[in-house]
Amino acid sequence: MVRAAAEAERLAQACAERMWADDHASQVLGMKLDAVAPGTARVSMTVCREMVNGHGTCHGGFISTLADSAFAFACNSHGTVTVASGFDITFLEPAELGDVLVAEAREVALRGRSGIYDVTVRCGDTRIAEFRGRSRSLGRPILEEAR
Amino acid sequence: MVRAAAEAERLAQACAERMWADDHASQVLGMKLDAVAPGTARVSMTVCREMVNGHGTCHGGFISTLADSAFAFACNSHGTVTVASGFDITFLEPAELGDVLVAEAREVALRGRSGIYDVTVRCGDTRIAEFRGRSRSLGRPILEEAR
Amino acid sequence: MVRAAAEAERLAQACAERMWADDHASQVLGMKLDAVAPGTARVSMTVCREMVNGHGTCHGGFISTLADSAFAFACNSHGTVTVASGFDITFLEPAELGDVLVAEAREVALRGRSGIYDVTVRCGDTRIAEFRGRSRSLGRPILEEAR
Amino acid sequence: MVRAAAEAERLAQACAERMWADDHASQVLGMKLDAVAPGTARVSMTVCREMVNGHGTCHGGFISTLADSAFAFACNSHGTVTVASGFDITFLEPAELGDVLVAEAREVALRGRSGIYDVTVRCGDTRIAEFRGRSRSLGRPILEEAR
Repeated sequence: MVRAAAEAERLAQACAERMWADDHASQVLGMKLDAVAPGTARVSMTVCREMVNGHGTCHGGFISTLADSAFAFACNSHGTVTVASGFDITFLEPAELGDVLVAEAREVALRGRSGIYDVTVRCGDTRIAEFRGRSRSLGRPILEEAR
Repeated sequence: MVRAAAEAERLAQACAERMWADDHASQVLGMKLDAVAPGTARVSMTVCREMVNGHGTCHGGFISTLADSAFAFACNSHGTVTVASGFDITFLEPAELGDVLVAEAREVALRGRSGIYDVTVRCGDTRIAEFRGRSRSLGRPILEEAR
Repeated sequence: MVRAAAEAERLAQACAERMWADDHASQVLGMKLDAVAPGTARVSMTVCREMVNGHGTCHGGFISTLADSAFAFACNSHGTVTVASGFDITFLEPAELGDVLVAEAREVALRGRSGIYDVTVRCGDTRIAEFRGRSRSLGRPILEEAR
Repeated sequence: MVRAAAEAERLAQACAERMWADDHASQVLGMKLDAVAPGTARVSMTVCREMVNGHGTCHGGFISTLADSAFAFACNSHGTVTVASGFDITFLEPAELGDVLVAEAREVALRGRSGIYDVTVRCGDTRIAEFRGRSRSLGRPILEEAR
């Protein structure tokens, strides 16, 4: 049991490393993959000048992109190539230039090839956004994939 | 009547220009504001290397950001500062490196300070994503705002 | 071409009749299937005493149920058993005791086994709710199904 | 502190009783209000013949109605009249004739007059649906309201 859990952890890590190496978008935006485990992931990003409007408020698209990245790492943590079929996001508080945003993704439900993942984006103790992602597994393994 | 319509068109244009000047995010991503009118907007963007993963597929976050920008121009076209309270997006087909994505936003409903706007993202004749934005007006004018 | 269209119409009608015969829920709520065609359906319902609270306002669940029924007829109109994987609804105006609600469903996108259908619920000229359904085909025919 | 918590509990109970007395819809469907506290509520319902189709599967609209009722009790538990502006639901497993469905609602976020509430609908240990409600407070008290 402990062994299976350790194995699942290692698989989640290996999948995340493979995905991260390929994920130019998350890297270009300065995201950091803080943690990943079976069904969960934490990704952080600092709001930079390119992400804000003239009032210093972060474009909602970048907050969504951060949450979407955390969602992607979480739903691919079981070793099978899994894509987003869609998501819903609610913006609670504006994010501002220099804010460090932390997105925490957790698995809510998995049924066959479909899954639901919730992501909370926070800046310190302030909740910035709530995101609910809908995933769809493609059924093929991440690690044996030809790159 | 014709006069009022022309006035509304001019207001939509003036609001879009003011917003565009402030919108670093949309500019940095290479977006173009193709058209804006009362309740509608069309914004386009070419998928570049920074937006794709190792397989050449565009990160869903950038597709969402494009749709969110078209939504923002459409819901601010009546002259009142209006923010996104949230949105839902469904991904239909992957977008790839070099694709020119066109996002068309249209007003579905307005009730008091709340609105719904649908945005379709296409690449040529292919539907890439369907987005539904929820807006909330803050009640103050865009043009007289202190910058 | 004309022939194929007529065939598609007949199939939509036949599927709707089969589904309707089985659909106790829609019948018990007094719904009427006004029209069905490939990818579209119109269903109506009068708000009765059992659907309202002490203030005479219709429970949102019944408005959702009406929209969900219109969605079901539209997404099953192509002859393949298709289920709802989920939906999003926004309430725009309250519905009241005695209101005749009309739900019009239309296909927005179909990709493989997944589809998106929009449903507008109106009372006369007033928009009551906007609904977006997500469908998933199970791949087997409706008409040859053993009952 | 303990006193304030007890006060908040009593207020949640009193608001629920007032709402329940007015809520014909939930009563007609045979719902039971199992528990209510500040920001949470649990409501249950047995799937009866009127809710199923010819295959014995519950119409998604009734599952949504159950979740919507739990959401309503939770978001009105703080004493202020609060309405649903919309919700998103994902269906995970079908519910069948005779199933006892339990909907548990919990507050996810409150910001000014807007809130988000998640509701999980279960049958025993099986997750039937995940619901996310969006609430809007009208600012007036529930208990002093003229009936």
